[in-house]
Amino acid sequence: MDKVKVSIQGQSGSYHDIAARKFFGQEISVLGRENFRDVFCDVREGHADFAVAAIENSLYGSINQVYDLLLSNKSYIVAEIYLHIHHCLAGIRGADIAKLKEVHSHIAALEQCSDFLNYEIPYAKQVVKNDTAGSARELMELGDRAKAAILNAETAEKLGMEVLARNIETNHHNYTRFIVVSNNPKPLDKTQDKTSIVIQTAGSHADDDQKPGALYRALECFAKRKINLSKLESRPIVGKAWHYMFYIDFEAALHLKKSQDAIRELQEIGCDIRIFGSYAKGKLLSSEQESKNHKKTSAKV
Amino acid sequence: MDKVKVSIQGQSGSYHDIAARKFFGQEISVLGRENFRDVFCDVREGHADFAVAAIENSLYGSINQVYDLLLSNKSYIVAEIYLHIHHCLAGIRGADIAKLKEVHSHIAALEQCSDFLNYEIPYAKQVVKNDTAGSARELMELGDRAKAAILNAETAEKLGMEVLARNIETNHHNYTRFIVVSNNPKPLDKTQDKTSIVIQTAGSHADDDQKPGALYRALECFAKRKINLSKLESRPIVGKAWHYMFYIDFEAALHLKKSQDAIRELQEIGCDIRIFGSYAKGKLLSSEQESKNHKKTSAKV
Repeated sequence: MDKVKVSIQGQSGSYHDIAARKFFGQEISVLGRENFRDVFCDVREGHADFAVAAIENSLYGSINQVYDLLLSNKSYIVAEIYLHIHHCLAGIRGADIAKLKEVHSHIAALEQCSDFLNYEIPYAKQVVKNDTAGSARELMELGDRAKAAILNAETAEKLGMEVLARNIETNHHNYTRFIVVSNNPKPLDKTQDKTSIVIQTAGSHADDDQKPGALYRALECFAKRKINLSKLESRPIVGKAWHYMFYIDFEAALHLKKSQDAIRELQEIGCDIRIFGSYAKGKLLSSEQESKNHKKTSAKV
Repeated sequence: MDKVKVSIQGQSGSYHDIAARKFFGQEISVLGRENFRDVFCDVREGHADFAVAAIENSLYGSINQVYDLLLSNKSYIVAEIYLHIHHCLAGIRGADIAKLKEVHSHIAALEQCSDFLNYEIPYAKQVVKNDTAGSARELMELGDRAKAAILNAETAEKLGMEVLARNIETNHHNYTRFIVVSNNPKPLDKTQDKTSIVIQTAGSHADDDQKPGALYRALECFAKRKINLSKLESRPIVGKAWHYMFYIDFEAALHLKKSQDAIRELQEIGCDIRIFGSYAKGKLLSSEQESKNHKKTSAKV
């Protein structure tokens, strides 16, 4: 049987790679791409069965581009994954932390370690790269002991790097939510308890102004049915400055009557809606091997 | 009299610099910083009278870090500026667009020109830099005709660059909203018609879960008084994964009775609130010299 093909942004050993393998198992074929646009293209064109894409981090916030690509590629969300992120600082064997001149990594990893970088090693220049594991491989090829990378500790060790400092994230409540994307809406789990949609409130897609309170009226469709929202994200409507569409995650399967009623009422009050999918709430996985306890995560907006 | 000191991210000729000078006039002293953290520090520590910081672009969306820094530095918003953004591709004199190998710029500028870059010059590698004008200066020093930058056309010409293509933004409705930041809450204009706040709904700051519908209930405080919201932005609460605070802009002066009543009701239902300031709705300015018509901008959420 052919291996499941999963497209990710970044290289082998990146957090995307770790999330994909923890979810689908080690025996998958991973296509590592330079950017999210290519990842979504892989799924749309059938080059990959699935994509795994980070959509939000508990410290950094939403990854806007992934929201936009979900919509523009007409993709579906069929599952989600939560990964507890731990970063380390790693260099070439023999590197001395006191003599570092540069630290390379993905912008989100640099931001998440800002206290360590700004207060512990303020003398090292921060250099933004496309990928955590990719920046480490680049440094290994250079072999310059004055340059280090921020990445997953296990990956650093596999690459033969020297770990100079562990768990350097500013806040240890550092979680990333990944979505599993497909061009087929069928959820990967039998049970679904979460649904993702995007709405444009009445008037926001026409030439006239949005009605005041349109978002409030839209949220009422959920509140009056006691459907909990776990996320509300606004994104600009392209070509209509300062008007927004709202990405909403709600905690109910789409096939339930209350969900169907809420969607119908949204349409009745003039909202344009696209449904990304209904899927099982993700388990929390750790980016380190030692910790294997899975627990459900939950929040209310 | 001493010149007004304004701190910005980026160098002379960047869009931040253009916005600051269009708002305060040419005769200001501009402090160009590498990152937004240093810009907010300048204002907090009194090294600058004001900061001008991009908070949102009509295509790219919100600039999350600026929202976070507003809160962590206890800063105030005293004015806002809207700038119509036009990008050009510029290279060293004698450069040939067909022979370009790399295009350098700020990530937002690259994203805003993605159609041009991906379809017109797909052979040129996109390289992320800290700043539009800064990346151009770097290229001028290198003198490599195979590398070009994306920046403001006027700045490119001042730098002595050759403009290879004009108005290369994917969507011409490309506007950036800048806030003027101070450590003194006094608004810069006599009239105020807009107020910015951030709220944490009941329960989101305690250990228990947020109440379902808490955001809906908060928005009701504005909707029932017919106060229009022009922006709602969610940001993660650090240390409390998948719980959010909401940044709200509403279209009314803070001193009005309806605003005071809304704020009081928010407090009564258990919201934590911080008020960033009440200020005059910004005029729309153009990043090109030729167009000088100012108009008010408006939207409703």
